[in-house]
Amino acid sequence: MTRTGRPRSTAADAAILRAARELLVERGVGGASIEEIARRAEVSKVTVYRRWSSREALLAAAVESSAEGLPGRTHREADPAELDPDMTYDQMTALIESALPQAARTLATPGYRALLAQAFGSRFTHPGVMAAYWDNHILPRRRVALPVLRRAVTEGHLPPGTDVEALLDMTVGALLYRLLQPGDITPEEMLDHLRRVYRQAGLLRS
Amino acid sequence: MTRTGRPRSTAADAAILRAARELLVERGVGGASIEEIARRAEVSKVTVYRRWSSREALLAAAVESSAEGLPGRTHREADPAELDPDMTYDQMTALIESALPQAARTLATPGYRALLAQAFGSRFTHPGVMAAYWDNHILPRRRVALPVLRRAVTEGHLPPGTDVEALLDMTVGALLYRLLQPGDITPEEMLDHLRRVYRQAGLLRS
Repeated sequence: MTRTGRPRSTAADAAILRAARELLVERGVGGASIEEIARRAEVSKVTVYRRWSSREALLAAAVESSAEGLPGRTHREADPAELDPDMTYDQMTALIESALPQAARTLATPGYRALLAQAFGSRFTHPGVMAAYWDNHILPRRRVALPVLRRAVTEGHLPPGTDVEALLDMTVGALLYRLLQPGDITPEEMLDHLRRVYRQAGLLRS
Repeated sequence: MTRTGRPRSTAADAAILRAARELLVERGVGGASIEEIARRAEVSKVTVYRRWSSREALLAAAVESSAEGLPGRTHREADPAELDPDMTYDQMTALIESALPQAARTLATPGYRALLAQAFGSRFTHPGVMAAYWDNHILPRRRVALPVLRRAVTEGHLPPGTDVEALLDMTVGALLYRLLQPGDITPEEMLDHLRRVYRQAGLLRS
């Protein structure tokens, strides 16, 4: 327990997110109630609601919190430069290159793949979770990535006429597609997949 | 009821697949048992098992059966030339171009998106369904698409050094990614998305 209250209570945040992730994997979105999450995290429901305004926002944050190491993730600990819409093409490719090994380890984790499947699988049964994930976590990254990609076209790093929105959908989509496929994947295989996709997208040098 | 038995009983096939699709959407993979499917289709369990050797194979076929109009789908009614690994780049782009409007209508259907979310969401809870879908329906299409794409590189229709496997994952992945996003999409918006992705991938002329 911290006495200063600043940061509010990182320990409680972490316990709540961990409990939410576990319940999401075990029981799906339908089985991850605020009540169950609070019980498992050993905090009160009020403590949860003080941090997240809705179950949907909490579950979206839980999905996001599992994606450590992915390029551009909005961790409090991350270098803010990661999310700089003014970064150059070279800075972007260097960022992606440096992030790939950790990203591959995270993406190859069965727990992460299970979490993602539960979240995307809830798209129709509980649409609020994907909506919150999209609005709170994906859209902010797209708003950073798109101007960087547009400048890369203007400056000749990507071919003229590149449709940067389609390219972004294709790059993220290829990762998602791999994660939802059957069978296990090793971190080495995932790293190879990531490199091939980012290279084919023109977002990695070499 | 047909007396000739050839085709076995298209009506029973269709009723079973329709019941499986409905139960998948309503209850997810866990709620779509052979017993429930047979009851809703008004056939016996033996009739189901005579056609599909396992629940997983049937549910995979149900997902596949909902994807009418997608380029390269293995409908019995489809022109076999669709699946010709010797087709030229021009034949492929013409096939894609002609398939896009129907594909956009199918992909924009809430029922299809719900079915896909349930199938991908079951990736960890019931891995057999995605495994059967992959083996029976996706891999055969990849085996046709990859040599066509490789020849397109050799013949200069796609840039030298194109990683055709990565490109295929990116193209399919971008469709999947759009389908799993929150919110509705109109057939017109879906068609625009499809055109942009296939064009960015170099798989559409113009």
